[in-house]
This record gives sequence, structure tokens and C-alpha cells, in this order.
Amino acid sequence: MMTNTKKMKAVEITEPGGPKALSLCQRDIPQAAPHEVLIAVKAAGVNRPDVLQRMGAYPPPKDASDLPGLEVAGIVEAVGDDVTRFRVGDAVCALTAGGGYAQYVSVDAGSVLPVPAGLTMTQAAALPETFFTVWHNVFERGALQKGEVFLVHGGSSGIGTTAIQLAKAFGATVITTVGSGEKADACRQLGADHVVEYHEEDFVSVAKQVTDGRGVDVILDMVGGDYINRNYACAAMDGRIVQIAFLGGAKTEADFSKLMMKRLTHTGSTLRIRPLEVKALLARQLEEHVWPMIEEVRIAPVMDMIFPLAEAWRAHERMEEGAHIGKIVLDVA
Amino acid sequence: MMTNTKKMKAVEITEPGGPKALSLCQRDIPQAAPHEVLIAVKAAGVNRPDVLQRMGAYPPPKDASDLPGLEVAGIVEAVGDDVTRFRVGDAVCALTAGGGYAQYVSVDAGSVLPVPAGLTMTQAAALPETFFTVWHNVFERGALQKGEVFLVHGGSSGIGTTAIQLAKAFGATVITTVGSGEKADACRQLGADHVVEYHEEDFVSVAKQVTDGRGVDVILDMVGGDYINRNYACAAMDGRIVQIAFLGGAKTEADFSKLMMKRLTHTGSTLRIRPLEVKALLARQLEEHVWPMIEEVRIAPVMDMIFPLAEAWRAHERMEEGAHIGKIVLDVA
Repeated sequence: MMTNTKKMKAVEITEPGGPKALSLCQRDIPQAAPHEVLIAVKAAGVNRPDVLQRMGAYPPPKDASDLPGLEVAGIVEAVGDDVTRFRVGDAVCALTAGGGYAQYVSVDAGSVLPVPAGLTMTQAAALPETFFTVWHNVFERGALQKGEVFLVHGGSSGIGTTAIQLAKAFGATVITTVGSGEKADACRQLGADHVVEYHEEDFVSVAKQVTDGRGVDVILDMVGGDYINRNYACAAMDGRIVQIAFLGGAKTEADFSKLMMKRLTHTGSTLRIRPLEVKALLARQLEEHVWPMIEEVRIAPVMDMIFPLAEAWRAHERMEEGAHIGKIVLDVA
Repeated sequence: MMTNTKKMKAVEITEPGGPKALSLCQRDIPQAAPHEVLIAVKAAGVNRPDVLQRMGAYPPPKDASDLPGLEVAGIVEAVGDDVTRFRVGDAVCALTAGGGYAQYVSVDAGSVLPVPAGLTMTQAAALPETFFTVWHNVFERGALQKGEVFLVHGGSSGIGTTAIQLAKAFGATVITTVGSGEKADACRQLGADHVVEYHEEDFVSVAKQVTDGRGVDVILDMVGGDYINRNYACAAMDGRIVQIAFLGGAKTEADFSKLMMKRLTHTGSTLRIRPLEVKALLARQLEEHVWPMIEEVRIAPVMDMIFPLAEAWRAHERMEEGAHIGKIVLDVA
């Protein structure tokens, strides 16, 4: 176990509020517990839960850092006594329990993955949160199969761009919804078969039409609200709907008759609260099934903009404006 | 293929309406198609969908008989050319696609089961609809495991009495809800561990209390309405909620945040529309796993009242009054 009393730069949430609630601070460099890897962070991904945490709507779990930041890429600075998989100097990316907006973060070794060959640190920092989320919710929870039809809302988001590529790579037909023509083009370039601009078209009608009335097999939804009845309406018999957020609200007047008559499965999950063993299992599955696809350049993280760590508030503004396509990342070099 | 121009007595729905819409009629005796068994009906079970069908709210599938009745027991009168499993004279019970309220009904051989040793015809006629439904929804769709906690609403109904016994037999802890002290006693006698009289107690509080706050693993619900949020509230992490009807309505203002945060699975199904192959598979599973338990008298159908076929309207009145405990059956002898 190393001892380190040096300080690092980090971004903290001074008090719940707008983007300017994020401010640069000095913190002690964390230490690697026996099962942990201490990473010298080069880049940190920005995610929607960071915004919610900043607003006070998504408090960090107990024992987690109070600093925001759920994913990083960097260089291994130190390893705990029980860690054999990684060595000092390795280029890694990791899902963190928080604390990613900092020069150093200590992470359970099970949540760490090598940086895929060919990727920059900023690209690698854009992987963990969305890839863990999409893998678990679309392929495990939603059990998407080759040849099935998949609908993902918010196709141009970090989750959306990841889900489109992974679903296509595993042989599904992909429908997605977006809010602008520019975003539609981006999704088509990623391989989406049918892109619905939701201001202009009803995704239920489109989904029914392009499936000859059969409907879609798996839906990944982060909207909720009135999308819930519409998801039920456009799902196929035995369809699965997986809820990963509620940007449009979690409460709605829902009609469950379709859920029963079509034998739908409505489920959902959140990643952050899962035990370390679950995250470790997901990491190994990604490394086996998905990292090779990234190295073959069949799949790549879609990068929106990169901001310096000290300007994390600008990254949050960018995310809240909703004009981004793909991932927003902080440069921590 | 036998030819038969003889007539039989049956009960038809003259037009959608109250119990008196059921009236005795004469119909041609059906013939057994190559894959079918013609049963001389001795008893016919009465089920909630029969009531809905009588009211015009649940039209029979195309190609199904217009006569009500989803389950029977009787003696094999004739078999189709492709049927090898059953012979003329066999005592059988069967799930029917309709047409059970009659002296004869022709049924796909896959939906036919032997009458378990020791059971009367009226008892055997009380088995198929609830046992197919409970087996599929609780053990397959809900994946109830030994040692888990199971909640079934309407514990004194045909579905409820079946679900309580099967869940106990397979090693679950059972909580159930009922509307009276008499019904509560009946459920306790069947083995229910905790019985909630819903006029007096809140099942969410009881379920939380008896599980030390953990909640229940599987819920079988035929109520819907405001039970949906309450089911979400009392479910454990990774809980499964299976919807088989909506006696309290299918629409409600639902809060899906618990569904996501607890990783619940909300699903449901209806039996009647499933393909014959699915029903045949369920029949074989029941015969293997459950019929032996019935023959060992570890499980028995709970019998409410028996009415003559001609008084089917009284059976429907009885069901609509809601005072019944267990199954209502028609004697067709």
C-alpha cells in the first residue's frame, strides 16, 4: 500500500445547482485499497447522471467519492496488494463509483479494462459508462437477438450512438429517434436502419410501418413519460422494454392492457448501485465480446466535444443544451 | 373420422348481457379433427373470462366455438386419426378453446390430460384453466424459486387457491390478499403463510414487515388499477410482477421509478390466445411436475359450488357476487 500525501486537482460540486456549481479544487490523491487500481487520469467522460448529481437529484452512494465522474481513462499509477491483472504504466479505462473529474481516481480492479488498441485517451474515457449500460440492458436484460428489431430513443446521445452500433454489429435491425436532421444524419452514418425525427413523425407509426405491423422486439428507453404507452403500442408480441432513465418523467397514466395481451416485459436498471462483482462480470464480457470489435474499428465511440477539466461546467452546459452528438469528455492531461 | 348428426345440449350466449344471457340450446355434436379428441363432457369449469365473454368484453378467438367454457372433464368419445395418446373410454380433463358448456367438445390432443387418480369429474374439470395459468405465469414467466417470497392477490379465487398450493409445494413463502375473514381462513388452511384482509390492512406494509423490509420476489396479480404502484412498492430488488387480468382496471397513473431502481420485471400473459404447441408443452409439464402431487393429495382443487349445466347463469351470478372460495363447476352429466 502506497502512502501519498500529495494533492491533486479535481472538480467538486460546491452546492447543488447549475453548471457553475462545478468548481476546481484541491484534494488529497486517493490511495489504492488492496483490490484497487490507482489511475492517473488523462480523460474523464461526462454523463447525464453527473448533471443530476450536480443538481442534487442523484446523490452518490455511500462510500463513493463526493466528486462527480463515472468513467475515466489514464495510466495505472499504483496497484493494491491483491491486484495482479494490471501493472503500473498500463493504459486503462474504467467505470468509477464517482470521482472521475480529478487527476487521480482509485477504482476496483474488476471495473478496469485495457484501452483498446488504436484509441486515444479521450476516446477510451468515452467507453465505460455507455458500453456497460448498453451491454447489460440491451443484450442481457433485453436479450436482443440477431435478426430482431431494436428501437433506441435518443439515438445521438452517448447511449444512443453506442446502442446503434452494438445492435447493428450483433445483427439487429435498428430504429432510433432523434430531435434534428443533423442528429438523424449522424445516426444513419452509424448504421441505423430507420431514423425518426420525433418533432415531425410518430415513432409508433414508423415502427409499425417498417416492421409490417409486427412491432419492435427490444426498446431501450431513457425518456419515460408519454413514451411508455407509446413503447407498449409499438412493441411486438413478447417484446422487451428496458428503462434506463426518465428524462421525460417517471410518472404517467399507463395502459397496461397491452403489456399483458402482448406478453411484454418491462424492466430497467441503473448501473451505479450494482455490486462490484456485477460490474467485474460486465467488464470481462465487454473485453471478450466488444473490445475486439473496437480494435477492428467496426465500432467506435462517437465524440462530441472535449473540454479542459477546469471547464467542466461548460461540458455540463453543452450536455444540458442537448445539441451534442455522442460523448462529451474532459481532458485531464 | 366419425360422422355424427346427433344433437347435444349446450349453453350459449344469446346476446351480450347479464347472467340470464346464458341459455340452454341444442347444437350439433362437434367432430374430432385428425389431431383432436372428442370428449363426452361430465363437468365444465367456470372461469372469469367466461363472464367477460358473456358481457361481450372478451370475444372468442377466430376458429373457436362461440359457446363459453374453457375447461372440461369427461370421457373420450372419439379420437382423430392422428391421435395415439388417448383412447375411447379414457377419463380426461382438458383446456378448451371455448365450447366447454356443452355435452360434447372437441379439443386438440395436446391440451388433454388424464384425470389424476382419485379425483372426481367435477374436481378434474376445475384443474386445467387455473393450473395452466399458474404454472406458466408463476413458475415460467415469474421464475419463482424455492425459498423466495410469493404474493398472490385474490387468494380465495380459483387462481389464488391453486397458486397458494403450488407455491407452497415448491418451497416458497406465500403472502395473499383476501376480502373476508372466511376467505382468510380458507387460504391459511391451504398453507398461506401470511393472509392480508385488504379491507383492514395494507398489503404493502404487511409484505414489507414479514420480509424484514426486503419485499416480495414474485407477485401474481389479476387486479391492476392502484395495485400496480403498490406491487412496485412491495416488490423486492429484482422482483417479478406477472399480470393475468385487470379486475380493477388496466389504466393507472404509475410511477415507474421503482421499476427501474429495483430492476423489477413487469410482464403478463393470457392463456387463451397461445398456440396449441405452447398449450401442449404446458400440459406435459403439468403432467410431469404437478399431477403426481395431486395424486399424492399434496395439492387438491378447492371446490366452491356445483351447478347443473342448465343453470349456468346461477354459476355466473355466484362468480360475480364474489363470495366464492375456489372453483365453480357445472355438472354436465
